[in-house]
Amino acid sequence: QWMMLDWKPRRPDMLVDPFGLGKIVQDGLVFRQNFSIRSYEIGADRTASIETLMNHLQETALNHVKTAGLLGDGFGSTPEMCKKNLIWVVTKMQVLVDRYPTWGDVVQVDTWVDASGKNGMRRDWLVRDCKTGDILTRASSVWVMMNKKTRKLSKIPDEVRQEIGPYFVDSPPVVDDDSRKLPKLDEHTADYVRSGLTPKWSDLDVNQHVNNVKYIGWILESAPLPIVESHELCGMTLEYRRECGRDSMLQSLTAVSGDGVGGLADSGGYVECRHLLRLEGGAEIVKGRTEWRPKYAGSLGSLNQLPAETA
Amino acid sequence: QWMMLDWKPRRPDMLVDPFGLGKIVQDGLVFRQNFSIRSYEIGADRTASIETLMNHLQETALNHVKTAGLLGDGFGSTPEMCKKNLIWVVTKMQVLVDRYPTWGDVVQVDTWVDASGKNGMRRDWLVRDCKTGDILTRASSVWVMMNKKTRKLSKIPDEVRQEIGPYFVDSPPVVDDDSRKLPKLDEHTADYVRSGLTPKWSDLDVNQHVNNVKYIGWILESAPLPIVESHELCGMTLEYRRECGRDSMLQSLTAVSGDGVGGLADSGGYVECRHLLRLEGGAEIVKGRTEWRPKYAGSLGSLNQLPAETA
Repeated sequence: QWMMLDWKPRRPDMLVDPFGLGKIVQDGLVFRQNFSIRSYEIGADRTASIETLMNHLQETALNHVKTAGLLGDGFGSTPEMCKKNLIWVVTKMQVLVDRYPTWGDVVQVDTWVDASGKNGMRRDWLVRDCKTGDILTRASSVWVMMNKKTRKLSKIPDEVRQEIGPYFVDSPPVVDDDSRKLPKLDEHTADYVRSGLTPKWSDLDVNQHVNNVKYIGWILESAPLPIVESHELCGMTLEYRRECGRDSMLQSLTAVSGDGVGGLADSGGYVECRHLLRLEGGAEIVKGRTEWRPKYAGSLGSLNQLPAETA
Repeated sequence: QWMMLDWKPRRPDMLVDPFGLGKIVQDGLVFRQNFSIRSYEIGADRTASIETLMNHLQETALNHVKTAGLLGDGFGSTPEMCKKNLIWVVTKMQVLVDRYPTWGDVVQVDTWVDASGKNGMRRDWLVRDCKTGDILTRASSVWVMMNKKTRKLSKIPDEVRQEIGPYFVDSPPVVDDDSRKLPKLDEHTADYVRSGLTPKWSDLDVNQHVNNVKYIGWILESAPLPIVESHELCGMTLEYRRECGRDSMLQSLTAVSGDGVGGLADSGGYVECRHLLRLEGGAEIVKGRTEWRPKYAGSLGSLNQLPAETA
């Protein structure tokens, strides 16, 4: 049960992290870091963007590994992984957003890891409003190891398992695994296609690859504006299939479920989209599913209706 | 003299800002905020990007206004400005970068304001490495007021001057005004043109306009990759001419001074570029000049030479 990670307001240990670099809590198994939401992390509707949220998840994951003393040379790799030329690659990411914070809010991100099957690692996150303790976001991800040179997936070597095993928290995922198969999407089944997407120099990470988080922006590039404007992303499942480098030319495809944009009024205004990000040549980079709820639905509680001016 | 803002290492008041929201120092005239550089704020060469730096400048400017109790409804407007439908618009920005910080570094940003001519305000920033006190970046900007409805520039009304005047620091700019005229650039005089740039939904700020910082990424889109890869931006002057909305289609133009990319070896490897960001229709959005020094030149001190493998 992830409820074991009870939130206690204003614990004294929250005050001994003046530079916001985070620290280990919960018997050494959970890493915690606070983030104050900055003006440039919010969008047109004054709330933090999903990319901001994902950036905070990435940052706590890396700081967790660093603080545990397990950061070898590289971006999240342990010393034994470095010796064997292994890197972590994410294969699946599920995110549920209850509420997006706004400028000046402070969020508290907890993260921990567990085994996932025989050769994977699961990393979970729980994001809370620091002031109220309300849960804002839950996220669960699966990672496997890849050989940096051959680009082939690898089992977890015993030496690496000895490094990371002691940090595994024996608990179910904070987001139930959505094992529904993501249906195939192509130019015929997609409702919206956005072509000609290319990485900017600044989109590359230290491995000279496009960072996972950047994909989300591209995926949402083909989401129809009427949905993006009137709705907020409340759930997302992404399956990462292939990496993409700086010379890639990408296409973003989106299909809207049910009646599409015209049928926004269905099922309380909730909308589901399916997405594919692929190379112009056809190879799949990321497949995904997103769920959207009418803006302000969360803050209106059980009313679940749009205010007149935005309906 | 901006040297009056002497840096004192590890002052006790640096520890009373646990959430990194910043505070007023120096007799109430200087606002100071620390930022720890995060993994997603660094690029392929492991240093913070110029956009990250500019974001930190924006954040401190807004928090300065907020902490002074002068934040009306809006993004940096004072209560009297709100009453009169006035907003701040930046007309000029000059930045000098001595060194870019890397992941985990903590930077300390000081900012203050002064008058600029009769109807403008100057805002300066000084960015230091928190651990060593070294100056990393100096920046100076000029702001004027615009009527939100008519989109016309406005004088500073007396009521607003009474609000902000007491915060003016009487000191020369931290960056000498570069008054060299930025030469006209068009498709004939530019060496590189990148067309078809469009804002993403997530590029818009709360005013539904493209944020100033986003322009920099677009300007650098037309900077030649050989320069971007082997050099780092060490100086930038931007003149903002026009705002751009979410339906704008933009072109980025760059001209390389002297012999261009082929002549990188000249003048110790320093390169100067001139830039224009314009609407496809032709209207100028931002004009600029950037200066680039060979990577590692700064850390090698007076040697000023590229290591063999990157030369």
